[in-house]
Amino acid sequence: MSHLQQSFAVRFTYNVFFTEKLFKSTNPLLADFFTQQSSELRKKILFVIDSGVADAHPDLLTDIKAYFAQLTDRVELVPELIVIPGGEISKNDPALVEQLVDAVDRHGVDRHSYIVAVGGGSVLDMVGYAAAISHRGIRHIRIPTTVLSQNDSGVGVKNSVNYRGKKNFLGTFVPPVAVFNDRDFLITLDDRDWRAGISEAIKVALIKDSLFFEWIERNAEALAARDMETMDYLIHRCAEMHLEHIAGGDPFEMGSSRPLDFGHWSAHKLEQLTNFELRHGEAVAIGIAMDCLYSQQLGWLTDADTNRVLKTLRTLGFSLYQPMLDADESKGVLKGLAEFREHLGGQLTIMLLQGIGKGVEVHEIDAAKVRWSIATLKEQEPTAESQLV
Amino acid sequence: MSHLQQSFAVRFTYNVFFTEKLFKSTNPLLADFFTQQSSELRKKILFVIDSGVADAHPDLLTDIKAYFAQLTDRVELVPELIVIPGGEISKNDPALVEQLVDAVDRHGVDRHSYIVAVGGGSVLDMVGYAAAISHRGIRHIRIPTTVLSQNDSGVGVKNSVNYRGKKNFLGTFVPPVAVFNDRDFLITLDDRDWRAGISEAIKVALIKDSLFFEWIERNAEALAARDMETMDYLIHRCAEMHLEHIAGGDPFEMGSSRPLDFGHWSAHKLEQLTNFELRHGEAVAIGIAMDCLYSQQLGWLTDADTNRVLKTLRTLGFSLYQPMLDADESKGVLKGLAEFREHLGGQLTIMLLQGIGKGVEVHEIDAAKVRWSIATLKEQEPTAESQLV
Repeated sequence: MSHLQQSFAVRFTYNVFFTEKLFKSTNPLLADFFTQQSSELRKKILFVIDSGVADAHPDLLTDIKAYFAQLTDRVELVPELIVIPGGEISKNDPALVEQLVDAVDRHGVDRHSYIVAVGGGSVLDMVGYAAAISHRGIRHIRIPTTVLSQNDSGVGVKNSVNYRGKKNFLGTFVPPVAVFNDRDFLITLDDRDWRAGISEAIKVALIKDSLFFEWIERNAEALAARDMETMDYLIHRCAEMHLEHIAGGDPFEMGSSRPLDFGHWSAHKLEQLTNFELRHGEAVAIGIAMDCLYSQQLGWLTDADTNRVLKTLRTLGFSLYQPMLDADESKGVLKGLAEFREHLGGQLTIMLLQGIGKGVEVHEIDAAKVRWSIATLKEQEPTAESQLV
Repeated sequence: MSHLQQSFAVRFTYNVFFTEKLFKSTNPLLADFFTQQSSELRKKILFVIDSGVADAHPDLLTDIKAYFAQLTDRVELVPELIVIPGGEISKNDPALVEQLVDAVDRHGVDRHSYIVAVGGGSVLDMVGYAAAISHRGIRHIRIPTTVLSQNDSGVGVKNSVNYRGKKNFLGTFVPPVAVFNDRDFLITLDDRDWRAGISEAIKVALIKDSLFFEWIERNAEALAARDMETMDYLIHRCAEMHLEHIAGGDPFEMGSSRPLDFGHWSAHKLEQLTNFELRHGEAVAIGIAMDCLYSQQLGWLTDADTNRVLKTLRTLGFSLYQPMLDADESKGVLKGLAEFREHLGGQLTIMLLQGIGKGVEVHEIDAAKVRWSIATLKEQEPTAESQLV
């Protein structure tokens, strides 16, 4: 018996750019990016666009074509710009992944070419997955168009699709080669999507950075009123913390390290229970509220701090109760604990708070305390009349 | 406009063990491996086995169950050992990937659990792919059972399946967590599979190590006569060179670096043209012969050295001509050049020889010289009568 040891490190480097009017001819960012990519050959670029974004920006496809018409010396735009449905539905339909793989084949998009995804987190997840598995990984550029994707998933290293309704069951860890956050896409978001992404910023602030939470608390009304400068700072700081967490730990989660997932165990299940009518960020807001109340019951989070978090979430416009929280327990949120453990692997690990800015992992969850948190949220919920917006 | 730069390195480490009687209770290798894996929890192990291997080793499933029955304190064998068809067919059928993903779901196999593949290169490729995409990557152990997989693909970092007949169109780069090469599996190989894997050793010797080629040349008769000690050395040295190439360069082929693919551009196409009746290694032997003759025409490889290579391949028992080499050029091997470029991406890059042990990359291939190589191989081929084995 003998053995050979293999050991090597692979370095991944990418930039997250913050810009506006990305596809206007006056913005050199994308053109410069392709100029700087070392290349012996002109590369192909395949665009995949979220239909919601294409609808809200009727000039988008024309702008993209015009922008790349200036760059034909460097890159070749695949003339077919693929528009696919946005939202969680895009991750539920295996035919969409197949449609993209087929386009890769049909248009001869090789591993040194680029697939660009323009859209919300779900579209980025799905397109990233199709890019990751085609030819063992085609270079992937993300252009996130929602608050959630610009400050969280879109700047990270994961992609995924759902499998038989199980969220993110199929996927890989593959960093993008670049991310372009264009603030103009945020202007046309509806209020729900504008708001939903803020919950990820609250999440990361609560577990890592009390000053950032205080900033969000002070600026909750401005954010609710859609002040763009305030949102710019929130996205930049949240993206920065997300990138730091990835680089500082175990980027591909090969060991026991976890994603930044405070408030997420119940959120994933709630999304599924509501058939994804609840947006991810909306579910995370409820999950944050639940896990703050749970931390309060442990005596880890003061009553005052718990109320500050709930008040901030409500000021932002989040509903903190959803009737599916009271679904039969044989299929309710508590079932989500097992699925959450199974998806991340290893021991059950749930992040709780020992104060604002201080996340702590636990490995057991007491069902009675979860039930109390749910009952409290239900009790505090404004009546149906006052909920009408 | 501003940007954040993300940069991190991910280290991958794994051992390739050379052993025998891996699943006998007297062999502690696997048990030790699982003891050394850091673990807060007992992990699940899902076995997927090549039907050809299961048929040739009727005690295999019983042995695996008995072996893991001793290890229940450390690991939990999923009681259903999945047996799937071996050979290229396993990479052509999307239902098999689905069957494995479904088993992952049904048996609650998480990312910190293990999927073990036992089989030839095709089964390892397919199972590795299913493991790589499930839960964003379940730990994967390879137990290669053929010469080809023990010295080449099985010790590397790639996995794949075919898509609509296009070889390796879908796949990822994900290193295994361990490889166990058990020489006993080689004893039951039929002559074609025993021989086929030797062509990858000749390939790596020709482009990197003239002394290793001379060793193969001297030992060709012993290898053809199935001398096991000789094969042990061949596999060990070939695996070692394969691992060195991966670690020394660009393991995930993100830049312009290439796999060790001398003789492979035509081999991939020939496999497809013969509907995979030609084994990969048999096709590579023909591809090596073709690219040696091509190098000879360039004046880069002497007539004597060219003949040494062809003679060694024939001594080993390889046929160096296949009628599909003369298929209509609208669909023939020359079409394989474009597909080869597209799959690897970037500029066409073909390895040729400037002497034994010295591979050199070129970026153009002259069709007339390819035709001459094919005609030469056809002319030199023994008549049909003498071919009968």
